[in-house]
Amino acid sequence: MTESTKYLLSEDRMPRDWYNIMADFPEPMAPVLHPGTHQPVGPADLSPLFPDTLIAQEMTGERHVEIPTPVRDIYLLWRPSPLIRARRLEKALDTPAKIYFKYEGVSPAGSHKPNTAVAQAYYNAEAGIKRLTTETGAGQWGSSLAFAGSLFDLQVKVFQVRVSYQQKPYRQALMRTYGAECIPSPSDLTESGRAILAENPDHPGSLGIAISEAVELAARDEGTKYALGSVLNHVMLHQSVIGLEAMEQFELAGDDPDIIIGCTGGGSNFAGIAFPFLGAQLRGGRRRRIIAVEPAACPTLTRGRFAYDFGDTAHLTPLTKMHTLGSSFTPPGFHAGGLRYHGMGPQVSHALSLGLIEARAYQQLGCFEAAVEFARHEGIVPAPECTHAVKGAMDEALRCKEEGKAETILFNLSGHGHFDMQAYIDFFDGKLEDGDYDAAGAEAALAQLPQLG
Amino acid sequence: MTESTKYLLSEDRMPRDWYNIMADFPEPMAPVLHPGTHQPVGPADLSPLFPDTLIAQEMTGERHVEIPTPVRDIYLLWRPSPLIRARRLEKALDTPAKIYFKYEGVSPAGSHKPNTAVAQAYYNAEAGIKRLTTETGAGQWGSSLAFAGSLFDLQVKVFQVRVSYQQKPYRQALMRTYGAECIPSPSDLTESGRAILAENPDHPGSLGIAISEAVELAARDEGTKYALGSVLNHVMLHQSVIGLEAMEQFELAGDDPDIIIGCTGGGSNFAGIAFPFLGAQLRGGRRRRIIAVEPAACPTLTRGRFAYDFGDTAHLTPLTKMHTLGSSFTPPGFHAGGLRYHGMGPQVSHALSLGLIEARAYQQLGCFEAAVEFARHEGIVPAPECTHAVKGAMDEALRCKEEGKAETILFNLSGHGHFDMQAYIDFFDGKLEDGDYDAAGAEAALAQLPQLG
Repeated sequence: MTESTKYLLSEDRMPRDWYNIMADFPEPMAPVLHPGTHQPVGPADLSPLFPDTLIAQEMTGERHVEIPTPVRDIYLLWRPSPLIRARRLEKALDTPAKIYFKYEGVSPAGSHKPNTAVAQAYYNAEAGIKRLTTETGAGQWGSSLAFAGSLFDLQVKVFQVRVSYQQKPYRQALMRTYGAECIPSPSDLTESGRAILAENPDHPGSLGIAISEAVELAARDEGTKYALGSVLNHVMLHQSVIGLEAMEQFELAGDDPDIIIGCTGGGSNFAGIAFPFLGAQLRGGRRRRIIAVEPAACPTLTRGRFAYDFGDTAHLTPLTKMHTLGSSFTPPGFHAGGLRYHGMGPQVSHALSLGLIEARAYQQLGCFEAAVEFARHEGIVPAPECTHAVKGAMDEALRCKEEGKAETILFNLSGHGHFDMQAYIDFFDGKLEDGDYDAAGAEAALAQLPQLG
Repeated sequence: MTESTKYLLSEDRMPRDWYNIMADFPEPMAPVLHPGTHQPVGPADLSPLFPDTLIAQEMTGERHVEIPTPVRDIYLLWRPSPLIRARRLEKALDTPAKIYFKYEGVSPAGSHKPNTAVAQAYYNAEAGIKRLTTETGAGQWGSSLAFAGSLFDLQVKVFQVRVSYQQKPYRQALMRTYGAECIPSPSDLTESGRAILAENPDHPGSLGIAISEAVELAARDEGTKYALGSVLNHVMLHQSVIGLEAMEQFELAGDDPDIIIGCTGGGSNFAGIAFPFLGAQLRGGRRRRIIAVEPAACPTLTRGRFAYDFGDTAHLTPLTKMHTLGSSFTPPGFHAGGLRYHGMGPQVSHALSLGLIEARAYQQLGCFEAAVEFARHEGIVPAPECTHAVKGAMDEALRCKEEGKAETILFNLSGHGHFDMQAYIDFFDGKLEDGDYDAAGAEAALAQLPQLG
């Protein structure tokens, strides 16, 4: 009993401010452009979709943004989340490396997503909004916004990518439990959805399409706004609470990570754990390796183009400069639904373009193998998205073993897989396959990138 | 930010000993009898099923039993578990009562069951055992023993009540993830199972039948022992860690519960939270109301007989004096699979017979209504079993409102419902029905109680 397993912070040490990487980037990000005029957008351009407070957070260069007390009060239902040392996994891998993970699966919805869902619901409710629309892939985001909506009396309508809707019925049940409505996308509720269905009634859906549907409804209906679970700057801001806590917890542990790993779909759990550490480095602190792990079948960072693109399929969103496979790219229906996005958060893309982070891509079978090994030693069953981070951490630990290096590895276990057990069933039954990267599809989608002046 | 939401203990304040209610009962319990001779059993009678250390714990009168270091080390993966004040629910109910819940869903398997699973796996591994058999209802116990087995390199074979096996495929996936084998019961692997199937090939199964199958295999196969997830004294002992932590957490909170509530199937989560408080009362402390809540369709404590009975259908287990509906009683297939047991833990039965605790029964529809209201305010979706405790706590809070009393209510939220979302789907779809109590079936089963000399 000499060594600790968990590093917990008391409630009074939960961060009082979110951290904003914008204040520390060595070069400014490319501006967000209006989809019609191709001119930089101002707050007014975004106001049909978001309340003013969130628009201000999207654009601010302030290093710290105070977490409102009602948001903090709700965070305390599950935060600070634990930092756990994976001692049994280290022993099984026979590695000199130390492996820590920050576990965000303790939230009511089972992932990191409530960190921003609660904040977004709060600011919308404060602005008098009554209804929110959103999209979801695997359902982690949709159920998180449903949870947050239930606390602020907001009606929440979730467009879920159809292939995930069919794979994960329990996620819909969770959204219903929180009082939200969940609709498979593409749907016939929107022009964007109807246009897709007219071409292909069996379209499996994509996050890009679901975003179009949610944005269209929010822009159309009075008293309705839109909420996005990743990609945007204010989402990365809210998720910084993860890394800020981890920094304090490493102080408790008397340790410091050499390598920080997160999986990336839109980039929010990765940014959440990594950016506070990266910011410290940019302000003169030590350099750490920061690794984004993505699915080989949707390899935005490793094979995408860093260019202006739309966030959605119907081209209703502003243009942002990001790593993209093209907004019409439809990845195969692999199980990590939260990683099936054609683009990447602009801040994460910017960090990669500046050489501040690394990126790598994995096929899903190896990720599930790693996750099962992790579960048998540490007990927690990772969400399919997080299996990529687990695999990344285990590969680094094995490299440390080969090289005889006692490095300290931190990864973000951003959610549990309780609602994704069909993926594990398919894995055990040999029905899970590595998904080929559709290079031709991406090339075709990239050929349609908007041409800027 | 003046009031706390969660009361967390640091790792060093996790209990070092389990608490044994046997030391404080004002009257001794009726002895356990051999099924053949009807004479009190000795350790040798139990040794085909359990290692000596667990048999000693089953029979000990010592007040405190030290928690072995390897067990404590594993507990620390999720323990101490949080005590949470349900402030939002209190406000929604507009009650002067304070509602706290101890949340055991933070364990890897999602319930309190690993508290004893880890201990049982440890003692078996220490005794050189290689394989464990067990039964499970909803699957909370089976997946917990699977988790514990994975940590001590034990092969685990789980007989799951068929109706639950069919209702909850994700639980089986969880057991497979931990490396265990899960078999629907009745099965053709045992004589007990084959006998039942010969009469009714579509038998929905029961915990009593599944116990028979698991016991039969353990008694037959070399190097194989049996593990039970509830009912037995040593299980109640291991679960005392819940209440011991809660007592320390109430000190932190500067509060003290007037009412303690748990749901009861075999009684282990109820005993876990209640017995440390009850023991303090029996040693001269204040009296509290302690309420066991059970399903109206399997009302062991409220409508059963306090008599000697078998723990299983095939009459392979010793005879214990307990509240029972008769070992051949098969409750309807309602969703709280963990509460579908014909008997009750002898210590819980003894406490009820001495008037130390109360019991009440609820129909499931009202329980799910309460659970959905709870989830919309507190975020956590309760396991179907725990919906009974939630309903009990809410009813007491409403009584306090009527009576204008600011009582402090504690209930055990012993598991989350992530693997039980089909129950919520059925509830929302109007497919869930209140199950009638089969009084005639119980009468017939009780007519077959063993006749003792």
